[in-house]
Amino acid sequence: MDLSRCSLNSVTVRSASLPQLIDLASAHGFGGVGLWRDSYAEHGVDDAARRAAAAGLRVTSVCRGGMFPQPTRTERARAHDDNRRAIDEAHALHADCLVLVCGAATARDLAMARAHIFDGIAALIEHAAAAQIPLAVEPMHPMMAADRSAITSLGEAVDLVERLDSPWVGLAVDTYHVWWDVALDSLMTRAGARVHSVQLADWVLPIHGQLSSRGMPGDGHIDMPAFVDLARRCGYAGMFEVEVLSDQWWSRPPADVARAASRALAAITEPAPAAP
Amino acid sequence: MDLSRCSLNSVTVRSASLPQLIDLASAHGFGGVGLWRDSYAEHGVDDAARRAAAAGLRVTSVCRGGMFPQPTRTERARAHDDNRRAIDEAHALHADCLVLVCGAATARDLAMARAHIFDGIAALIEHAAAAQIPLAVEPMHPMMAADRSAITSLGEAVDLVERLDSPWVGLAVDTYHVWWDVALDSLMTRAGARVHSVQLADWVLPIHGQLSSRGMPGDGHIDMPAFVDLARRCGYAGMFEVEVLSDQWWSRPPADVARAASRALAAITEPAPAAP
Repeated sequence: MDLSRCSLNSVTVRSASLPQLIDLASAHGFGGVGLWRDSYAEHGVDDAARRAAAAGLRVTSVCRGGMFPQPTRTERARAHDDNRRAIDEAHALHADCLVLVCGAATARDLAMARAHIFDGIAALIEHAAAAQIPLAVEPMHPMMAADRSAITSLGEAVDLVERLDSPWVGLAVDTYHVWWDVALDSLMTRAGARVHSVQLADWVLPIHGQLSSRGMPGDGHIDMPAFVDLARRCGYAGMFEVEVLSDQWWSRPPADVARAASRALAAITEPAPAAP
Repeated sequence: MDLSRCSLNSVTVRSASLPQLIDLASAHGFGGVGLWRDSYAEHGVDDAARRAAAAGLRVTSVCRGGMFPQPTRTERARAHDDNRRAIDEAHALHADCLVLVCGAATARDLAMARAHIFDGIAALIEHAAAAQIPLAVEPMHPMMAADRSAITSLGEAVDLVERLDSPWVGLAVDTYHVWWDVALDSLMTRAGARVHSVQLADWVLPIHGQLSSRGMPGDGHIDMPAFVDLARRCGYAGMFEVEVLSDQWWSRPPADVARAASRALAAITEPAPAAP
Protein backbone atom coordinates (compact mmCIF):
# COMPACT_ATOMS: atom_id res chain seq x y z
CA MET A 1 0.00 0.00 0.00
CA ASP A 2 1.01 3.56 -0.61
CA LEU A 3 1.92 4.88 2.86
CA SER A 4 0.52 8.30 2.03
CA ARG A 5 -2.87 6.60 2.30
CA CYS A 6 -1.99 5.03 5.64
CA SER A 7 -2.01 6.35 9.18
CA LEU A 8 0.08 5.51 12.24
CA ASN A 9 -1.97 5.15 15.39
CA SER A 10 -0.36 6.55 18.52
CA VAL A 11 -0.95 3.40 20.55
CA THR A 12 1.18 1.39 18.13
CA VAL A 13 4.17 3.38 19.39
CA ARG A 14 2.71 3.93 22.82
CA SER A 15 5.86 5.13 24.57
CA ALA A 16 6.60 7.79 21.94
CA SER A 17 5.97 11.41 22.89
CA LEU A 18 3.65 13.43 20.65
CA PRO A 19 6.55 15.15 18.82
CA GLN A 20 8.24 11.78 18.35
CA LEU A 21 5.05 10.23 17.00
CA ILE A 22 4.68 13.07 14.47
CA ASP A 23 8.33 12.75 13.47
CA LEU A 24 8.11 9.00 13.02
CA ALA A 25 4.92 9.22 10.95
CA SER A 26 6.48 11.90 8.74
CA ALA A 27 9.80 10.16 8.36
CA HIS A 28 8.17 6.97 7.09
CA GLY A 29 5.80 8.76 4.74
CA PHE A 30 2.55 8.07 6.52
CA GLY A 31 -0.28 10.35 5.43
CA GLY A 32 -1.85 10.56 8.85
CA VAL A 33 -1.87 9.74 12.52
CA GLY A 34 -4.56 8.27 14.73
CA LEU A 35 -4.52 9.78 18.19
CA TRP A 36 -5.48 8.23 21.47
CA ARG A 37 -6.41 11.02 23.82
CA ASP A 38 -3.53 10.25 26.15
CA SER A 39 -1.09 10.89 23.29
CA TYR A 40 -1.79 14.64 23.38
CA ALA A 41 -2.74 15.02 27.03
CA GLU A 42 0.64 16.50 27.96
CA HIS A 43 1.02 18.89 25.01
CA GLY A 44 -2.62 19.81 24.69
CA VAL A 45 -4.99 19.35 21.81
CA ASP A 46 -4.23 22.69 20.10
CA ASP A 47 -0.52 22.01 20.07
CA ALA A 48 -1.23 18.54 18.66
CA ALA A 49 -3.37 20.03 15.90
CA ARG A 50 -0.63 22.51 14.99
CA ARG A 51 2.07 19.84 14.93
CA ALA A 52 0.03 17.48 12.77
CA ALA A 53 -0.87 20.25 10.34
CA ALA A 54 2.70 21.50 10.15
CA ALA A 55 3.84 17.99 9.27
CA GLY A 56 1.12 17.60 6.68
CA LEU A 57 -0.45 14.75 8.62
CA ARG A 58 -4.17 14.20 8.69
CA VAL A 59 -5.68 13.05 12.01
CA THR A 60 -7.57 9.99 10.92
CA SER A 61 -9.20 9.20 14.24
CA VAL A 62 -9.43 10.19 17.86
CA CYS A 63 -9.76 7.36 20.37
CA ARG A 64 -11.95 7.26 22.31
CA GLY A 65 -15.44 8.24 23.29
CA GLY A 66 -17.97 5.73 24.55
CA MET A 67 -18.26 3.77 27.77
CA PHE A 68 -21.99 4.42 27.86
CA PRO A 69 -23.19 1.68 30.24
CA GLN A 70 -22.64 2.94 33.76
CA PRO A 71 -24.29 1.76 36.94
CA THR A 72 -25.83 5.10 37.90
CA ARG A 73 -27.42 8.09 36.24
CA THR A 74 -24.68 10.31 37.66
CA GLU A 75 -21.96 8.18 36.13
CA ARG A 76 -23.77 8.11 32.79
CA ALA A 77 -23.96 11.92 32.87
CA ARG A 78 -20.24 12.05 33.60
CA ALA A 79 -19.56 9.78 30.61
CA HIS A 80 -21.75 12.03 28.46
CA ASP A 81 -19.75 15.09 29.47
CA ASP A 82 -16.49 13.33 28.73
CA ASN A 83 -17.81 12.28 25.34
CA ARG A 84 -18.71 15.88 24.52
CA ARG A 85 -15.14 16.87 25.40
CA ALA A 86 -13.82 14.10 23.14
CA ILE A 87 -15.92 15.47 20.27
CA ASP A 88 -14.53 18.95 20.92
CA GLU A 89 -11.00 17.57 20.85
CA ALA A 90 -11.66 15.73 17.59
CA HIS A 91 -13.01 18.99 16.19
CA ALA A 92 -9.88 20.89 17.24
CA LEU A 93 -7.78 18.20 15.56
CA HIS A 94 -9.87 18.25 12.34
CA ALA A 95 -10.12 14.51 12.83
CA ASP A 96 -11.93 12.23 10.43
CA CYS A 97 -13.96 10.74 13.27
CA LEU A 98 -14.24 10.00 16.97
CA VAL A 99 -14.01 6.27 17.65
CA LEU A 100 -16.56 4.94 20.15
CA VAL A 101 -15.56 2.06 22.39
CA CYS A 102 -19.06 1.57 23.63
CA GLY A 103 -18.54 -0.03 27.02
CA ALA A 104 -19.34 -3.37 28.66
CA ALA A 105 -22.30 -4.54 30.65
CA THR A 106 -22.61 -3.87 34.32
CA ALA A 107 -24.23 -6.58 36.45
CA ARG A 108 -24.26 -9.21 33.67
CA ASP A 109 -27.00 -7.42 31.76
CA LEU A 110 -25.99 -7.17 28.11
CA ALA A 111 -29.44 -6.06 26.97
CA MET A 112 -29.39 -3.15 29.41
CA ALA A 113 -25.87 -2.23 28.30
CA ARG A 114 -27.00 -2.18 24.70
CA ALA A 115 -29.92 0.07 25.55
CA HIS A 116 -27.59 2.48 27.36
CA ILE A 117 -25.27 2.47 24.36
CA PHE A 118 -28.10 3.35 21.97
CA ASP A 119 -29.34 6.13 24.24
CA GLY A 120 -25.85 7.41 24.92
CA ILE A 121 -24.94 7.74 21.26
CA ALA A 122 -28.31 9.29 20.41
CA ALA A 123 -27.70 11.96 23.05
CA LEU A 124 -24.39 12.91 21.40
CA ILE A 125 -25.58 13.33 17.83
CA GLU A 126 -26.50 16.99 18.10
CA HIS A 127 -23.09 17.90 19.53
CA ALA A 128 -21.31 15.77 16.92
CA ALA A 129 -23.24 17.47 14.12
CA ALA A 130 -22.42 20.92 15.46
CA ALA A 131 -18.73 19.95 15.62
CA GLN A 132 -18.90 18.19 12.23
CA ILE A 133 -17.33 15.10 13.77
CA PRO A 134 -18.68 11.69 12.73
CA LEU A 135 -19.02 9.23 15.60
CA ALA A 136 -17.58 5.85 14.63
CA VAL A 137 -18.97 2.85 16.53
CA GLU A 138 -16.23 0.24 16.79
CA PRO A 139 -17.46 -3.31 17.12
CA MET A 140 -15.02 -5.01 19.46
CA HIS A 141 -13.91 -8.61 19.51
CA PRO A 142 -16.30 -10.77 21.56
CA MET A 143 -13.46 -11.54 23.97
CA MET A 144 -13.82 -7.92 25.11
CA ALA A 145 -17.53 -8.20 25.85
CA ALA A 146 -16.96 -8.24 29.61
CA ASP A 147 -14.63 -5.27 29.84
CA ARG A 148 -14.68 -3.09 26.71
CA SER A 149 -17.83 -3.27 24.67
CA ALA A 150 -21.20 -4.95 24.49
CA ILE A 151 -21.12 -4.26 20.74
CA THR A 152 -19.45 -7.51 19.78
CA SER A 153 -19.84 -7.98 16.06
CA LEU A 154 -19.91 -5.98 12.87
CA GLY A 155 -23.48 -7.10 12.27
CA GLU A 156 -24.59 -5.77 15.63
CA ALA A 157 -22.76 -2.49 14.98
CA VAL A 158 -24.32 -2.04 11.55
CA ASP A 159 -27.75 -2.72 13.00
CA LEU A 160 -27.12 -0.16 15.74
CA VAL A 161 -25.92 2.47 13.31
CA GLU A 162 -28.85 1.88 10.98
CA ARG A 163 -31.28 2.23 13.88
CA LEU A 164 -29.65 5.48 15.01
CA ASP A 165 -30.02 6.63 11.40
CA SER A 166 -27.93 9.80 11.49
CA PRO A 167 -25.27 10.97 9.03
CA TRP A 168 -23.14 11.63 12.13
CA VAL A 169 -23.09 8.02 13.31
CA GLY A 170 -21.01 5.48 11.43
CA LEU A 171 -18.48 2.75 12.01
CA ALA A 172 -14.84 2.08 12.79
CA VAL A 173 -13.79 -1.34 11.55
CA ASP A 174 -10.65 -3.03 12.87
CA THR A 175 -9.54 -6.30 11.28
CA TYR A 176 -8.56 -7.69 14.67
CA HIS A 177 -12.11 -7.40 15.97
CA VAL A 178 -14.11 -8.65 12.99
CA TRP A 179 -11.96 -10.91 10.81
CA TRP A 180 -13.57 -14.15 12.01
CA ASP A 181 -17.11 -13.21 10.97
CA VAL A 182 -18.69 -15.52 8.38
CA ALA A 183 -20.77 -12.57 7.14
CA LEU A 184 -17.84 -10.13 6.88
CA ASP A 185 -18.20 -9.45 3.16
CA SER A 186 -21.93 -8.80 3.17
CA LEU A 187 -21.70 -6.73 6.36
CA MET A 188 -18.96 -4.53 4.92
CA THR A 189 -21.14 -4.04 1.87
CA ARG A 190 -24.05 -3.02 4.10
CA ALA A 191 -21.77 -0.71 6.09
CA GLY A 192 -20.56 0.92 2.87
CA ALA A 193 -20.04 4.66 3.13
CA ARG A 194 -20.82 4.63 6.85
CA VAL A 195 -17.30 3.34 7.55
CA HIS A 196 -15.26 6.30 8.82
CA SER A 197 -12.19 4.44 9.98
CA VAL A 198 -10.46 1.22 9.02
CA GLN A 199 -7.77 -0.11 11.33
CA LEU A 200 -5.39 -2.97 10.73
CA ALA A 201 -3.88 -5.37 13.25
CA ASP A 202 -3.24 -9.08 12.90
CA TRP A 203 -4.27 -12.07 14.97
CA VAL A 204 -1.18 -13.86 16.28
CA LEU A 205 -1.10 -16.98 18.45
CA PRO A 206 -1.03 -17.57 21.28
CA ILE A 207 -2.98 -14.68 22.73
CA HIS A 208 -2.06 -13.78 26.30
CA GLY A 209 -4.88 -11.44 27.13
CA GLN A 210 -7.88 -9.73 25.63
CA LEU A 211 -6.27 -6.32 24.94
CA SER A 212 -2.65 -6.32 23.85
CA SER A 213 -1.91 -9.58 22.06
CA ARG A 214 -2.04 -8.12 18.55
CA GLY A 215 0.40 -8.55 15.70
CA MET A 216 1.71 -6.41 12.86
CA PRO A 217 -0.38 -6.77 9.69
CA GLY A 218 0.98 -9.77 7.82
CA ASP A 219 2.39 -11.55 10.87
CA GLY A 220 -0.74 -13.47 11.74
CA HIS A 221 -3.84 -15.32 10.60
CA ILE A 222 -5.81 -12.55 8.91
CA ASP A 223 -5.83 -12.22 5.14
CA MET A 224 -4.91 -8.50 5.07
CA PRO A 225 -4.81 -7.93 1.29
CA ALA A 226 -8.29 -9.47 1.02
CA PHE A 227 -9.58 -7.19 3.78
CA VAL A 228 -8.07 -4.04 2.29
CA ASP A 229 -9.55 -4.98 -1.07
CA LEU A 230 -12.93 -5.61 0.52
CA ALA A 231 -12.91 -2.23 2.27
CA ARG A 232 -12.07 -0.43 -0.97
CA ARG A 233 -14.70 -2.30 -2.96
CA CYS A 234 -17.27 -1.36 -0.33
CA GLY A 235 -16.48 2.31 -0.87
CA TYR A 236 -14.05 3.13 1.92
CA ALA A 237 -12.02 6.10 0.69
CA GLY A 238 -10.15 6.97 3.88
CA MET A 239 -6.77 5.99 5.18
CA PHE A 240 -5.81 2.61 6.63
CA GLU A 241 -4.61 3.01 10.16
CA VAL A 242 -2.15 0.62 11.75
CA GLU A 243 -3.21 0.14 15.36
CA VAL A 244 -1.27 -2.64 17.05
CA LEU A 245 -1.80 -3.04 20.79
CA SER A 246 1.02 -5.40 21.59
CA ASP A 247 3.01 -5.99 24.74
CA GLN A 248 5.69 -7.46 22.56
CA TRP A 249 6.00 -4.43 20.26
CA TRP A 250 5.61 -2.03 23.19
CA SER A 251 8.76 -3.51 24.69
CA ARG A 252 10.77 -2.28 21.70
CA PRO A 253 11.89 1.27 20.80
CA PRO A 254 9.16 3.30 19.02
CA ALA A 255 11.46 3.91 16.06
CA ASP A 256 11.77 0.16 15.48
CA VAL A 257 8.03 -0.30 15.76
CA ALA A 258 7.24 2.53 13.34
CA ARG A 259 9.70 1.05 10.85
CA ALA A 260 8.12 -2.40 11.19
CA ALA A 261 4.65 -0.90 10.80
CA SER A 262 5.60 1.01 7.67
CA ARG A 263 7.14 -2.12 6.13
CA ALA A 264 4.11 -4.21 7.08
CA LEU A 265 1.73 -1.82 5.34
CA ALA A 266 3.98 -1.37 2.31
CA ALA A 267 4.01 -5.15 1.92
CA ILE A 268 0.23 -5.33 1.51
CA THR A 269 -0.49 -5.52 -2.18
CA GLU A 270 -3.57 -3.66 -3.26
CA PRO A 271 -5.31 -5.20 -6.24
CA ALA A 272 -5.09 -3.30 -9.51
CA PRO A 273 -8.19 -1.24 -10.27
CA ALA A 274 -10.66 -3.13 -12.41
CA ALA A 275 -10.43 -2.42 -16.14
CA PRO A 276 -12.95 0.16 -17.28
CA MET B 1 -30.27 -26.96 39.59
CA ASP B 2 -30.92 -30.56 40.44
CA LEU B 3 -27.54 -32.28 40.00
CA SER B 4 -29.19 -35.42 38.69
CA ARG B 5 -29.85 -33.37 35.57
CA CYS B 6 -26.25 -32.20 35.38
CA SER B 7 -23.10 -33.79 34.03
CA LEU B 8 -19.46 -33.48 35.01
CA ASN B 9 -17.13 -33.14 32.03
CA SER B 10 -13.83 -34.97 32.36
CA VAL B 11 -11.77 -31.96 31.38
CA THR B 12 -13.08 -30.02 34.37
CA VAL B 13 -11.15 -32.46 36.58
CA ARG B 14 -8.50 -33.12 33.99
CA SER B 15 -5.95 -34.83 36.23
CA ALA B 16 -8.49 -37.34 37.60
CA SER B 17 -8.25 -40.91 36.38
CA LEU B 18 -11.35 -42.42 34.81
CA PRO B 19 -12.31 -44.32 38.00
CA GLN B 20 -11.78 -41.16 40.04
CA LEU B 21 -13.92 -39.12 37.63
CA ILE B 22 -16.74 -41.69 37.92
CA ASP B 23 -16.43 -41.73 41.70
CA LEU B 24 -16.47 -37.94 41.96
CA ALA B 25 -19.48 -37.61 39.67
CA SER B 26 -21.37 -40.26 41.65
CA ALA B 27 -20.39 -38.91 45.03
CA HIS B 28 -21.75 -35.46 44.22
CA GLY B 29 -24.96 -36.76 42.68
CA PHE B 30 -24.29 -35.83 39.07
CA GLY B 31 -26.51 -37.64 36.59
CA GLY B 32 -23.85 -37.95 33.93
CA VAL B 33 -20.33 -37.44 32.75
CA GLY B 34 -18.98 -35.85 29.58
CA LEU B 35 -15.91 -37.65 28.31
CA TRP B 36 -12.97 -36.29 26.40
CA ARG B 37 -11.41 -39.14 24.50
CA ASP B 38 -8.18 -38.91 26.46
CA SER B 39 -10.13 -39.59 29.68
CA TYR B 40 -10.73 -43.22 28.67
CA ALA B 41 -7.66 -43.80 26.50
CA GLU B 42 -5.87 -45.73 29.24
CA HIS B 43 -8.79 -47.88 30.40
CA GLY B 44 -10.41 -48.32 27.02
CA VAL B 45 -13.84 -47.35 25.84
CA ASP B 46 -15.58 -50.60 26.85
CA ASP B 47 -14.30 -50.35 30.39
CA ALA B 48 -15.44 -46.73 30.50
CA ALA B 49 -18.90 -47.73 29.30
CA ARG B 50 -19.14 -50.42 31.98
CA ARG B 51 -17.99 -48.11 34.74
CA ALA B 52 -20.41 -45.34 33.78
CA ALA B 53 -23.31 -47.77 33.52
CA ALA B 54 -22.44 -49.42 36.83
CA ALA B 55 -22.47 -46.02 38.51
CA GLY B 56 -25.76 -45.09 36.87
CA LEU B 57 -24.13 -42.24 34.98
CA ARG B 58 -25.21 -41.25 31.51
CA VAL B 59 -22.48 -40.23 29.06
CA THR B 60 -23.76 -36.87 27.91
CA SER B 61 -21.09 -36.16 25.32
CA VAL B 62 -17.89 -37.42 23.80
CA CYS B 63 -15.32 -34.81 22.87
CA ARG B 64 -14.19 -34.62 20.15
CA GLY B 65 -14.58 -35.24 16.48
CA GLY B 66 -13.95 -32.56 13.90
CA MET B 67 -10.76 -30.85 12.68
CA PHE B 68 -12.02 -31.07 9.11
CA PRO B 69 -9.85 -28.42 7.40
CA GLN B 70 -6.53 -30.04 6.61
CA PRO B 71 -3.95 -28.94 4.07
CA THR B 72 -3.99 -32.15 2.01
CA ARG B 73 -6.44 -34.77 0.85
CA THR B 74 -4.46 -37.42 2.73
CA GLU B 75 -4.73 -35.51 5.99
CA ARG B 76 -8.44 -34.93 5.44
CA ALA B 77 -8.88 -38.68 4.91
CA ARG B 78 -6.98 -39.31 8.14
CA ALA B 79 -9.27 -36.87 9.99
CA HIS B 80 -12.29 -38.66 8.49
CA ASP B 81 -11.05 -42.02 9.75
CA ASP B 82 -10.44 -40.60 13.20
CA ASN B 83 -13.94 -39.12 13.21
CA ARG B 84 -15.43 -42.51 12.36
CA ARG B 85 -13.54 -43.97 15.32
CA ALA B 86 -14.89 -41.21 17.55
CA ILE B 87 -18.42 -42.07 16.44
CA ASP B 88 -17.77 -45.74 17.23
CA GLU B 89 -16.50 -44.79 20.68
CA ALA B 90 -19.55 -42.60 21.32
CA HIS B 91 -21.71 -45.56 20.28
CA ALA B 92 -19.91 -47.89 22.67
CA LEU B 93 -20.46 -45.36 25.45
CA HIS B 94 -24.16 -44.90 24.58
CA ALA B 95 -23.34 -41.21 24.51
CA ASP B 96 -25.94 -38.54 23.83
CA CYS B 97 -23.76 -37.05 21.07
CA LEU B 98 -20.30 -36.59 19.62
CA VAL B 99 -19.15 -32.98 19.90
CA LEU B 100 -17.50 -31.59 16.78
CA VAL B 101 -14.72 -29.05 17.19
CA CYS B 102 -14.67 -28.25 13.53
CA GLY B 103 -11.11 -26.99 13.00
CA ALA B 104 -9.44 -23.75 11.98
CA ALA B 105 -8.43 -22.40 8.62
CA THR B 106 -5.17 -23.33 7.03
CA ALA B 107 -3.38 -20.63 5.00
CA ARG B 108 -5.68 -17.80 6.15
CA ASP B 109 -8.60 -19.09 4.09
CA LEU B 110 -11.71 -19.15 6.26
CA ALA B 111 -14.05 -19.73 3.32
CA MET B 112 -12.11 -22.82 2.28
CA ALA B 113 -12.09 -24.06 5.88
CA ARG B 114 -15.85 -23.67 6.06
CA ALA B 115 -16.27 -25.62 2.83
CA HIS B 116 -14.11 -28.43 4.20
CA ILE B 117 -16.15 -28.45 7.39
CA PHE B 118 -19.41 -28.76 5.50
CA ASP B 119 -18.06 -31.57 3.33
CA GLY B 120 -16.39 -33.30 6.26
CA ILE B 121 -19.58 -33.44 8.32
CA ALA B 122 -21.67 -34.48 5.33
CA ALA B 123 -19.31 -37.41 4.78
CA LEU B 124 -19.88 -38.62 8.36
CA ILE B 125 -23.65 -38.60 8.43
CA GLU B 126 -24.14 -42.14 7.17
CA HIS B 127 -21.80 -43.55 9.81
CA ALA B 128 -23.39 -41.45 12.54
CA ALA B 129 -26.84 -42.65 11.54
CA ALA B 130 -25.72 -46.28 11.56
CA ALA B 131 -24.25 -45.78 15.03
CA GLN B 132 -27.25 -43.75 16.18
CA ILE B 133 -24.93 -41.00 17.40
CA PRO B 134 -25.94 -37.37 16.76
CA LEU B 135 -23.08 -35.14 15.67
CA ALA B 136 -23.11 -31.89 17.64
CA VAL B 137 -21.44 -28.92 15.95
CA GLU B 138 -19.98 -26.69 18.63
CA PRO B 139 -19.64 -23.05 17.67
CA MET B 140 -16.42 -21.86 19.29
CA HIS B 141 -15.57 -18.43 20.63
CA PRO B 142 -14.19 -16.17 17.86
CA MET B 143 -10.91 -15.96 19.77
CA MET B 144 -10.40 -19.60 18.75
CA ALA B 145 -10.90 -18.94 15.04
CA ALA B 146 -7.19 -19.28 14.29
CA ASP B 147 -6.56 -22.52 16.13
CA ARG B 148 -9.75 -24.40 16.99
CA SER B 149 -12.71 -23.68 14.74
CA ALA B 150 -13.79 -21.59 11.80
CA ILE B 151 -17.34 -21.98 13.09
CA THR B 152 -17.30 -18.89 15.26
CA SER B 153 -20.86 -18.07 16.21
CA LEU B 154 -24.10 -19.76 17.07
CA GLY B 155 -25.70 -18.17 14.02
CA GLU B 156 -23.11 -19.64 11.72
CA ALA B 157 -23.49 -23.04 13.37
CA VAL B 158 -27.27 -23.02 13.07
CA ASP B 159 -26.98 -22.06 9.41
CA LEU B 160 -24.51 -24.88 8.84
CA VAL B 161 -26.70 -27.44 10.58
CA GLU B 162 -29.78 -26.30 8.69
CA ARG B 163 -27.93 -26.60 5.38
CA LEU B 164 -26.73 -30.10 6.25
CA ASP B 165 -30.34 -30.91 7.04
CA SER B 166 -29.95 -34.27 8.71
CA PRO B 167 -31.51 -35.56 11.93
CA TRP B 168 -27.98 -36.73 12.82
CA VAL B 169 -26.42 -33.26 12.76
CA GLY B 170 -27.20 -30.85 15.57
CA LEU B 171 -25.50 -28.49 17.96
CA ALA B 172 -23.47 -28.33 21.15
CA VAL B 173 -23.86 -24.97 22.85
CA ASP B 174 -21.39 -23.79 25.48
CA THR B 175 -22.12 -20.55 27.33
CA TYR B 176 -18.46 -19.58 27.20
CA HIS B 177 -18.46 -19.55 23.41
CA VAL B 178 -21.75 -17.82 22.66
CA TRP B 179 -22.81 -15.67 25.63
CA TRP B 180 -21.82 -12.36 23.97
CA ASP B 181 -24.09 -12.78 20.95
CA VAL B 182 -26.76 -10.09 20.55
CA ALA B 183 -28.97 -12.66 18.79
CA LEU B 184 -28.53 -15.40 21.41
CA ASP B 185 -32.20 -15.72 22.28
CA SER B 186 -33.50 -15.92 18.74
CA LEU B 187 -30.71 -18.25 17.68
CA MET B 188 -31.41 -20.64 20.55
CA THR B 189 -35.06 -20.60 19.51
CA ARG B 190 -34.04 -21.47 15.94
CA ALA B 191 -31.69 -24.18 17.20
CA GLY B 192 -34.51 -25.67 19.28
CA ALA B 193 -34.55 -29.45 19.37
CA ARG B 194 -31.32 -29.64 17.37
CA VAL B 195 -29.34 -28.85 20.54
CA HIS B 196 -27.84 -32.13 21.76
CA SER B 197 -25.49 -30.74 24.39
CA VAL B 198 -25.44 -27.69 26.62
CA GLN B 199 -22.23 -26.90 28.45
CA LEU B 200 -21.65 -24.30 31.13
CA ALA B 201 -18.51 -22.32 31.86
CA ASP B 202 -18.17 -18.71 32.90
CA TRP B 203 -16.21 -15.79 31.48
CA VAL B 204 -13.76 -14.50 34.08
CA LEU B 205 -11.33 -11.62 33.70
CA PRO B 206 -8.57 -11.27 32.83
CA ILE B 207 -8.22 -14.01 30.26
CA HIS B 208 -4.68 -15.32 29.84
CA GLY B 209 -5.13 -17.37 26.70
CA GLN B 210 -7.74 -18.58 24.28
CA LEU B 211 -8.25 -22.08 25.72
CA SER B 212 -8.07 -22.44 29.47
CA SER B 213 -9.12 -19.14 31.05
CA ARG B 214 -12.61 -20.27 32.02
CA GLY B 215 -14.42 -19.90 35.30
CA MET B 216 -16.90 -21.93 37.32
CA PRO B 217 -20.51 -21.06 36.49
CA GLY B 218 -21.45 -18.09 38.65
CA ASP B 219 -17.91 -16.76 39.08
CA GLY B 220 -17.90 -14.55 36.00
CA HIS B 221 -19.78 -12.26 33.65
CA ILE B 222 -22.35 -14.62 32.16
CA ASP B 223 -25.93 -14.63 33.41
CA MET B 224 -26.12 -18.41 33.97
CA PRO B 225 -29.69 -18.66 35.32
CA ALA B 226 -30.92 -16.71 32.28
CA PHE B 227 -29.05 -19.03 29.93
CA VAL B 228 -30.31 -22.21 31.60
CA ASP B 229 -33.83 -20.81 31.46
CA LEU B 230 -33.40 -19.92 27.77
CA ALA B 231 -32.16 -23.42 26.91
CA ARG B 232 -35.12 -25.03 28.67
CA ARG B 233 -37.62 -22.68 27.04
CA CYS B 234 -36.14 -23.55 23.66
CA GLY B 235 -36.82 -27.22 24.26
CA TYR B 236 -33.51 -28.54 25.53
CA ALA B 237 -34.34 -31.63 27.59
CA GLY B 238 -30.84 -32.97 28.18
CA MET B 239 -28.39 -32.52 30.99
CA PHE B 240 -26.30 -29.43 31.66
CA GLU B 241 -22.65 -30.27 31.55
CA VAL B 242 -20.06 -28.33 33.51
CA GLU B 243 -16.97 -28.04 31.32
CA VAL B 244 -14.41 -25.67 32.79
CA LEU B 245 -11.05 -25.52 31.04
CA SER B 246 -9.09 -23.58 33.61
CA ASP B 247 -5.41 -23.50 34.44
CA GLN B 248 -6.40 -22.19 37.82
CA TRP B 249 -8.79 -25.01 38.64
CA TRP B 250 -6.48 -27.60 37.08
CA SER B 251 -3.84 -26.65 39.64
CA ARG B 252 -6.14 -27.85 42.42
CA PRO B 253 -7.02 -31.41 43.49
CA PRO B 254 -9.82 -32.93 41.38
CA ALA B 255 -11.90 -33.58 44.48
CA ASP B 256 -11.89 -29.86 45.29
CA VAL B 257 -12.82 -28.97 41.74
CA ALA B 258 -15.69 -31.47 41.59
CA ARG B 259 -17.02 -30.09 44.88
CA ALA B 260 -16.81 -26.52 43.56
CA ALA B 261 -18.52 -27.55 40.32
CA SER B 262 -21.35 -29.29 42.13
CA ARG B 263 -21.88 -26.25 44.35
CA ALA B 264 -21.77 -23.91 41.37
CA LEU B 265 -24.47 -25.84 39.54
CA ALA B 266 -26.61 -26.29 42.63
CA ALA B 267 -26.53 -22.52 43.12
CA ILE B 268 -28.13 -21.84 39.73
CA THR B 269 -31.79 -21.27 40.36
CA GLU B 270 -34.06 -22.63 37.70
CA PRO B 271 -37.25 -20.68 37.23
CA ALA B 272 -40.43 -22.30 38.41
CA PRO B 273 -42.44 -23.89 35.60
CA ALA B 274 -45.06 -21.53 34.20
CA ALA B 275 -48.51 -21.91 35.68
CA PRO B 276 -50.76 -24.04 33.47
